[in-house]
Amino acid sequence: AAPAAGDFVAASGFAPNRWVKLNVGGQIYATTIDTLVGREPDSMLARMFLQNGSMKPSERDEQGAYLIDRSPRYFEPIINYLRHGQFVCDSNISVLGVLEEARFFGIFSLVTHLEERLGQQETPLGDRPLT
Amino acid sequence: AAPAAGDFVAASGFAPNRWVKLNVGGQIYATTIDTLVGREPDSMLARMFLQNGSMKPSERDEQGAYLIDRSPRYFEPIINYLRHGQFVCDSNISVLGVLEEARFFGIFSLVTHLEERLGQQETPLGDRPLT
Amino acid sequence: AAPAAGDFVAASGFAPNRWVKLNVGGQIYATTIDTLVGREPDSMLARMFLQNGSMKPSERDEQGAYLIDRSPRYFEPIINYLRHGQFVCDSNISVLGVLEEARFFGIFSLVTHLEERLGQQETPLGDRPLT
Amino acid sequence: AAPAAGDFVAASGFAPNRWVKLNVGGQIYATTIDTLVGREPDSMLARMFLQNGSMKPSERDEQGAYLIDRSPRYFEPIINYLRHGQFVCDSNISVLGVLEEARFFGIFSLVTHLEERLGQQETPLGDRPLT
Amino acid sequence: AAPAAGDFVAASGFAPNRWVKLNVGGQIYATTIDTLVGREPDSMLARMFLQNGSMKPSERDEQGAYLIDRSPRYFEPIINYLRHGQFVCDSNISVLGVLEEARFFGIFSLVTHLEERLGQQETPLGDRPLT
Repeated sequence: AAPAAGDFVAASGFAPNRWVKLNVGGQIYATTIDTLVGREPDSMLARMFLQNGSMKPSERDEQGAYLIDRSPRYFEPIINYLRHGQFVCDSNISVLGVLEEARFFGIFSLVTHLEERLGQQETPLGDRPLT
Repeated sequence: AAPAAGDFVAASGFAPNRWVKLNVGGQIYATTIDTLVGREPDSMLARMFLQNGSMKPSERDEQGAYLIDRSPRYFEPIINYLRHGQFVCDSNISVLGVLEEARFFGIFSLVTHLEERLGQQETPLGDRPLT
Repeated sequence: AAPAAGDFVAASGFAPNRWVKLNVGGQIYATTIDTLVGREPDSMLARMFLQNGSMKPSERDEQGAYLIDRSPRYFEPIINYLRHGQFVCDSNISVLGVLEEARFFGIFSLVTHLEERLGQQETPLGDRPLT
Repeated sequence: AAPAAGDFVAASGFAPNRWVKLNVGGQIYATTIDTLVGREPDSMLARMFLQNGSMKPSERDEQGAYLIDRSPRYFEPIINYLRHGQFVCDSNISVLGVLEEARFFGIFSLVTHLEERLGQQETPLGDRPLT
Repeated sequence: AAPAAGDFVAASGFAPNRWVKLNVGGQIYATTIDTLVGREPDSMLARMFLQNGSMKPSERDEQGAYLIDRSPRYFEPIINYLRHGQFVCDSNISVLGVLEEARFFGIFSLVTHLEERLGQQETPLGDRPLT
């Protein structure tokens, strides 16, 4: 999906409102609806938070954060990608773990990028799929 | 154990209810009963949380999280495996540490996988069992 | 930008007041206005917190911390740079991730430094931009 | 010290009571008295928490956790060792740091094991004692 | 500075009182005044917390922790050094980052040690000072 209109607002990082909290597997992330919706309008998160989105938002925890039953560790590069459009991750992080989340959240430009990366390099032992 | 019926629901990640908190060694994990029960119906966590399970759930802390006296660090790849069926972990993480938890929680498909991995590679000094 | 007058105060680290909390992507950072303003008076953070700054501070969360929709992980070397003027980061941290934040916050002396570093070394696979 | 009677209970991980919280240098660990007492009955932690132990437990913080003025990072492999009797730690963790804690807490089987490990390998620069 | 009288008490780790909380850049550390004062009586922390010390303690946050506008990551080896007199840090941690904090806090025995270490080894790219 190409950058959409919301993208400009998300890139400012200081949008004056529309803050949401996500509880991803027990860890709290603070972000804006513009970030969740702007870069990948077809992703699961966009469909949850778009004004007339095709998905209902998930349940909220006691502090109002939307509950998502996924890995917080591998969500971090996902949300950063939605913030600025670059994939960055530390050298010890499992790219396969990030790919799994990119697929789950339906962020297809990132899925393609990560599959290419994993194809280019000798898959390390720690990154081999189980099956 | 093969994927069970609950698996489909767990894979959606946004099941509308049945959220639980686990306090693993002091760290809070948020997940769903579907995740705990669906993929490995014979595991200790499944038996604790199945409707007519063979184990009583553990005690809860002051915020209602089920207390588990185990390592939070090595539980992370365990719960991710229950979420999506892949074993992923970062390159610095001790696979022996994850194996120890997989055995404890009775997740036998993962135990087999990790034992094979540890057998294939020269066990690094940091991963040698103590005895 | 060269060190400014506020720099001396920031370097003491124990300025008797003017503490602020930043909520960067869900993680709380405690710092002083002197740190945010002193070293890089033209940066976005300085313009937000200078007494007659050209930007309005962002919204605050329920505990009064200023909300910033960016990566907490890569903000850490940024705030440390503002504290003492050195760029330090651990060997596993993605320098590209820090560069992305330095650009966003408009800390141009650091941008130049990081671009030179990334140019000097063979860009590792994990640090290649997506586009 | 050989495994004691309490060991069996600790190994179950779901003992129905006797939960304690430890505040180690600012970080909260949740565990059971069985874990603290069972595997190393002569350790400092066992002597603090045994019913007629030779040491008085330390002070408690405002949420009731026992305060311990030591490193939380290197306590983690210590408490895991008390939980299951294996020494596991990630590849980047300083073994010298863990050894320092094992000595402090008087867990002598682990001290012996770690000293052997450090003797076998070329001590890396980061692990050389200061003196 | 040689170990002082307070040293003995600090080494016990379970001093019955005089607990303090430090809020270092947003992260809470729990320690004792004996640790802060005992090993390096001339350091900034000692001068802040000695009964007739030459510095006034810094401001406190809403939970009573003393605010320090510095990096929590690189403070960790500093406080551990004050606890037991050894410098230990993980293999991925930037020694330059720790050195910067040792200088700030005026812990000169550690500064000397770290400068020697950094002089001995080829300075890695990530550890080169900015200027």
